[in-house]
Amino acid sequence: MLAGRRLRPVDRGAASAAVRASSPGLLRLEVVAGEPEVLVIGGGFGGLHVVRALSKGPAHVTIVDRHNFHTFQPLLYQVATAGLEPADVAYPIRTIFGRRSNVGFRHGAVAQLDLEGRRATLLDGAVIAFDHVVVACGAAANFFGIEGAERYATPLYTLADARRLRDRLLLTLEDAEEQPGIPAKPVNVVIVGGGPTGIETAGAVTELLNVCLRRDHLRIDPASAKVILLDVAPRLLGGFPGSASDYAAKVLTRRGVDVRLEASVASVTSDAVILASGERIASSVVVWAAGVTATGTIAASVRGAGPSGRIAVAPDLSIPGHANAWAVGDAAAIPDGKGSTCPQLAPVAIQSGRHCGRQILRAIEGRDTEPFTYHDKGIMATIGRNAAVAKVPGAPLVKGRLGWLAWMSLHLFYLVGFRNRIRVFVNWTWRYFDWPSGPRLIMSDAETAD
Amino acid sequence: MLAGRRLRPVDRGAASAAVRASSPGLLRLEVVAGEPEVLVIGGGFGGLHVVRALSKGPAHVTIVDRHNFHTFQPLLYQVATAGLEPADVAYPIRTIFGRRSNVGFRHGAVAQLDLEGRRATLLDGAVIAFDHVVVACGAAANFFGIEGAERYATPLYTLADARRLRDRLLLTLEDAEEQPGIPAKPVNVVIVGGGPTGIETAGAVTELLNVCLRRDHLRIDPASAKVILLDVAPRLLGGFPGSASDYAAKVLTRRGVDVRLEASVASVTSDAVILASGERIASSVVVWAAGVTATGTIAASVRGAGPSGRIAVAPDLSIPGHANAWAVGDAAAIPDGKGSTCPQLAPVAIQSGRHCGRQILRAIEGRDTEPFTYHDKGIMATIGRNAAVAKVPGAPLVKGRLGWLAWMSLHLFYLVGFRNRIRVFVNWTWRYFDWPSGPRLIMSDAETAD
Repeated sequence: MLAGRRLRPVDRGAASAAVRASSPGLLRLEVVAGEPEVLVIGGGFGGLHVVRALSKGPAHVTIVDRHNFHTFQPLLYQVATAGLEPADVAYPIRTIFGRRSNVGFRHGAVAQLDLEGRRATLLDGAVIAFDHVVVACGAAANFFGIEGAERYATPLYTLADARRLRDRLLLTLEDAEEQPGIPAKPVNVVIVGGGPTGIETAGAVTELLNVCLRRDHLRIDPASAKVILLDVAPRLLGGFPGSASDYAAKVLTRRGVDVRLEASVASVTSDAVILASGERIASSVVVWAAGVTATGTIAASVRGAGPSGRIAVAPDLSIPGHANAWAVGDAAAIPDGKGSTCPQLAPVAIQSGRHCGRQILRAIEGRDTEPFTYHDKGIMATIGRNAAVAKVPGAPLVKGRLGWLAWMSLHLFYLVGFRNRIRVFVNWTWRYFDWPSGPRLIMSDAETAD
Repeated sequence: MLAGRRLRPVDRGAASAAVRASSPGLLRLEVVAGEPEVLVIGGGFGGLHVVRALSKGPAHVTIVDRHNFHTFQPLLYQVATAGLEPADVAYPIRTIFGRRSNVGFRHGAVAQLDLEGRRATLLDGAVIAFDHVVVACGAAANFFGIEGAERYATPLYTLADARRLRDRLLLTLEDAEEQPGIPAKPVNVVIVGGGPTGIETAGAVTELLNVCLRRDHLRIDPASAKVILLDVAPRLLGGFPGSASDYAAKVLTRRGVDVRLEASVASVTSDAVILASGERIASSVVVWAAGVTATGTIAASVRGAGPSGRIAVAPDLSIPGHANAWAVGDAAAIPDGKGSTCPQLAPVAIQSGRHCGRQILRAIEGRDTEPFTYHDKGIMATIGRNAAVAKVPGAPLVKGRLGWLAWMSLHLFYLVGFRNRIRVFVNWTWRYFDWPSGPRLIMSDAETAD
């Protein structure tokens, strides 16, 4: 059965000279003699763009990820608030590179990375030898050691986070309904962090509450359903101009969000967020949008870890002391040329990934590598329907409906996969004209119960 | 915040006379004085149609389900084989009845059903009093006591089943790839049961394997990837005419499925299905499509359980001995008027639900109830692209492309929610002309790993 496709001849032991020297006798598959082996760890924005840059060159690339899909992280908050489905923002990595014969995917996690021996051991015991390796494994939520935060707050960095948060929000709403014999519970959604993720989530949760109460007729007293946005700084959207901060605070407040500035979180419990001032804010769900760190096993195993556990890299993105090892995206502390490091943002991951791929090709060709320069094309954040802020360097701040349309166009453009673009576009259009009879599905109980 | 909606005045203790008499002092919400309370347990085809029939009448209905969504079961096999997304076949129950002020939804499971006292206690302790109750809680896979079947085989009755099966299939394919240092594993998908679910799944798994090997370039030897369909009977599709059975077997065989008839399963182990003949069929994934039973807590708590644990009902669908208790759909053993019971099929659930709703209205109005008659409008099953069989009573068998188009139209028509219809229609059209860059996402590892 399944005729029509044959395994390509396997050329065992024909790895490049460097690999053979360091890994004698290693079993190898589908290796074209002399073509250098590149291992890319992580299929996020950084890793994908490394592979894209490499896929046209004389290299064989293996991309390893714990998930068989790439996640479009900027829209995770819409999955968390039941606006989009998981499949709308996830795309199988195999499918992305399906037509490139020199790119392979491996589903698994790296247990051990041996930069000297140029080999990675996966959790299932498989060994992958390489000539070059790129660490593009991203980051994780930064809880800053705040007591109870990791246990009781939900971050919004992975698709699993988004699905968990959605279920928590919807279950909280179901549980809050008045029931015979059971007193009604208030709904308090507390969002910690007033950056783009925080304000996007605050706006979307408000819209979700409105839809659930108006469309789904949940018997919840609107006065007892609150969204509280906390930021430690004196203004929201720290990286934006002051007028953007004021606009975001004004729009969110008008839409019902309780914006609390200079609010420093001391601890999180099962039902409250405690501020440094001693104030106790009751919470049913806590969203952690306070920033990321990079303290994974792989980052830790690489010598010379930089700020927030990120891997320190040279200006060409190579890891100092290992000419054939590289790091990109959120996992890397990339010098910005001004004595600091680039922010952990999607555009930095995309640009550093592309640059890294090109440098590996230069190294393969024996040419000198070039330093990475981040081209800041601007930042944007959406607050909800018809409200977003966009700041392009050298141009005035764009806000309101125009900013919102710009935000939507850019996100559709960067979304991987034509079909996902169509689905998200149709979804957004639909929701603009009519609140959706959308996917407010609680899935977690479907995992356990029958 | 969230202005624009107010809680309707709560009229505590104003239940109908019958309820008040039996449940003195019970807290009650949003009850219109004198309007009988109907509790519907289960939001499947049966439950939904009970509520639809009741929602225009003088009754207040509460629908209880463990999931906050209705599942369109006939398309679960497409979710399991990564053709559709979970959200395409699931629809929030609140949204279905959002505009009906006399219908409420309660997310939860019934722990105890007291037919005499006319009240149900949910797992969370809430008590729901009723004048009428409808048991529409569906069924579960029937493993016939076969050793290892429940543990090692995956049924295909709930959305959780479909998601689990999808992850198992995709993970099996990922694990089967040849890897350095790890020997390749063969892929053997064994499907037990040659009814509509079995043949639909067999056809769809074959297509999934083809897509994964051709599009995703999984390095699996096509000769080592097999789909085996077992049926204990001498022919597939027992309920159809013989020519349909022959056609299904011919098409499946041509598409690479190993069809094994008169194969009785004795036991299932972690890596094989053992036949009564002693033959051992190696298996990586076992799909259980051998039938359903109704042995839930609720069915068991109702006296007079009928065949396969189903609840015996009178011709008018009431439960004998309890004039105000009813059962419909897969959970009920519905007399077919010829000395036997109606099959556990979606059309029976839909028709019996509608009939039951109408009988409750008649009972409320003090009129006599009418017996239920099942109108067999025909049966159909699809085998894959351009191949399906449809049998309408009194008409010749329709098969091939025409049957397939009929199958698709009917399923789109019955799918709940305009948006789901559009999504599924676009999806099917897309897949017809081009194998999809579709949603082959493994989600289970996204639940645990970060």
